[in-house]
Amino acid sequence: MVTTLESLVAAVRPADSEAIAAAWRRQHQLTKPRGSLGALEQLASRLAGAAGRCPPPVPTSPGVAVFAGDHGVHAQGVTPWPQEVTAQMVAGLLEGTAVVNSLARRVGARVVVVDVGVAGDLPARLTDHPDLLSRRVRRGAADLSVGPAMTREQAVEALLVGAQVARDLVGDGHDLLVAGDMGIANTTPTAALVCAFTGASAEAATGRGTGVDDDGLARKVRVVRRGLDLHAPDPGDPVGVLAAVGGLEHAAVAGFLLQAAALRVPVVLDGAIAGASALAAHALAPAAVDHWVAGHRSTEPGASLALDALGLRPLLELGLRLGEGSGAVLAIPLVQSACAVLGEVATFGSGVAEVVGQAADPVTDAAATVPR
Amino acid sequence: MVTTLESLVAAVRPADSEAIAAAWRRQHQLTKPRGSLGALEQLASRLAGAAGRCPPPVPTSPGVAVFAGDHGVHAQGVTPWPQEVTAQMVAGLLEGTAVVNSLARRVGARVVVVDVGVAGDLPARLTDHPDLLSRRVRRGAADLSVGPAMTREQAVEALLVGAQVARDLVGDGHDLLVAGDMGIANTTPTAALVCAFTGASAEAATGRGTGVDDDGLARKVRVVRRGLDLHAPDPGDPVGVLAAVGGLEHAAVAGFLLQAAALRVPVVLDGAIAGASALAAHALAPAAVDHWVAGHRSTEPGASLALDALGLRPLLELGLRLGEGSGAVLAIPLVQSACAVLGEVATFGSGVAEVVGQAADPVTDAAATVPR
Repeated sequence: MVTTLESLVAAVRPADSEAIAAAWRRQHQLTKPRGSLGALEQLASRLAGAAGRCPPPVPTSPGVAVFAGDHGVHAQGVTPWPQEVTAQMVAGLLEGTAVVNSLARRVGARVVVVDVGVAGDLPARLTDHPDLLSRRVRRGAADLSVGPAMTREQAVEALLVGAQVARDLVGDGHDLLVAGDMGIANTTPTAALVCAFTGASAEAATGRGTGVDDDGLARKVRVVRRGLDLHAPDPGDPVGVLAAVGGLEHAAVAGFLLQAAALRVPVVLDGAIAGASALAAHALAPAAVDHWVAGHRSTEPGASLALDALGLRPLLELGLRLGEGSGAVLAIPLVQSACAVLGEVATFGSGVAEVVGQAADPVTDAAATVPR
Repeated sequence: MVTTLESLVAAVRPADSEAIAAAWRRQHQLTKPRGSLGALEQLASRLAGAAGRCPPPVPTSPGVAVFAGDHGVHAQGVTPWPQEVTAQMVAGLLEGTAVVNSLARRVGARVVVVDVGVAGDLPARLTDHPDLLSRRVRRGAADLSVGPAMTREQAVEALLVGAQVARDLVGDGHDLLVAGDMGIANTTPTAALVCAFTGASAEAATGRGTGVDDDGLARKVRVVRRGLDLHAPDPGDPVGVLAAVGGLEHAAVAGFLLQAAALRVPVVLDGAIAGASALAAHALAPAAVDHWVAGHRSTEPGASLALDALGLRPLLELGLRLGEGSGAVLAIPLVQSACAVLGEVATFGSGVAEVVGQAADPVTDAAATVPR
């Protein structure tokens, strides 16, 4: 099945406000003090809105797609890691030895790796691996500090690759998605994307990534600023922004996020790369954000800028900055738990009324004065 | 098996510093940037120290004990909930319809309910329930604002009840424990305990619990202050503090925490009640804290005061204030994941050296300058 970006964008629908209201009504009837589950209550109501029903279904089969790509801007010395590590880590991801594999096993999630733009060759023994999706649009993005990272056509192609991956995962029965990333130097285009979409300065949006020192950080900031000065990306033209200063995996993640939203399957966002990609997807279809959950707050500053711009509050704040989808996978049990509680816990008015019924009125009345 | 408080305290041993050092060495060899898993890296090293081996075993069978008790201080109007709700919620916990039951099912945890001091009668149909442990030391604590909450002997008896529950759960094969709580008005003795052990003021340690309004909060602060003025509890005499201003479930949780530490089985702490109880247990055996993990930061202010005094950083900050062990159970997947990553992920020097080996040196060198 082939689709166009236009049809993908048109298929995105906002949350169902009736289901959100029903979720809050039910939340207030559970046998617990109002508001006592804090952010989990908001999460459950958002998931009800995304699903269009209350209680929302408990996701049972998470699917993780790690989008891998390289970046010509690596030549500017924005990271101490050699570019070859992207392909090496793709191999690790396929062999199940990377961090996200370990985390995914804990929650029963499948991990597929999408080569949307790795520069180097993968080991021959892995090219037929069942979890490798070879969808290379080009061998790495070009150096955004000296020219566009890719053509508009390539950006659209990568967006549609991501959308197809989401459709395939949902078609295979996965009901909760995560977009991970792997790409040496990818926090540099990430910072540029965040600047383009939020108006933040290069200093504010650029972080240490996998661990550059002070000189490296200053160099990285200069490179991001040079790219922004060169392209003057227009946030009203999201595809143009992706083509100018993005990466192939960013474009693919954006398409993945749009397709998941169009299918009303929730996505847990990982860190900075997912956040920057979500900004692009949001610029294309603002309602898509209703279907996304922020898994965690990465220490990379662009991640927080992106979440703030999207109006999303992260579930975890653990100082993570790994990528691969790791922080999002860690948050999956919270998403499942929020749905389960709303669906399973006794309500004051139902079969357990005789057990806790007397408490319903005083509690509801008293708690109504407490801010949530 | 009968034990004494003295033998229990004497059995607590600190973390194994060799295992902690080995965990950090291994963490730095995993195929990921140093420090990129943030708080999970610290968690894994603490768990290695508690277990006395590296990598620490991944806990597979969590056990939750919800300690239930009532409080004579309820008569002072410190909560809008009627006291009968304690017994009603015990019934819900046994019937599997409370929040913690739903959360525990998600992680495959068993939930037992320990009636260590409920005032009212439980429904007759539940008195033989296999998950109910009837260990009532007395029918509710006395009103701490007019006299001691219990005798020293009763405090010790409740401590030993908690210890026995921990021994039994570990004997049944549970390898990760949670102490939950259920007791209408129990945030009032909690605040008094936190004041006694940390020196905090009644204003600073007293919160809205399940949801009192401004007048109720002011009344609650006065009641806590009156109790502290009346008893002048000595933090150097933890049993005396528990007897004067504690609750039966607080004493039992303290014993549970000590016994788990003595058995080197990690415990995930829930919110304010667990925190206050942990302060008592820590005062009895300071090394026990090495075996505890802070599951979350409750909105109840005493919880943060307790965690700060214990030097523990919570894993989750979701604005929870429910009790029952709910926030601790939500954190269990993070504990399991931290152990799994340390044990499962490839290291630069092992079999995948040829895949990512080249990256080991530049990364380690560069990341060494980045604060963790």
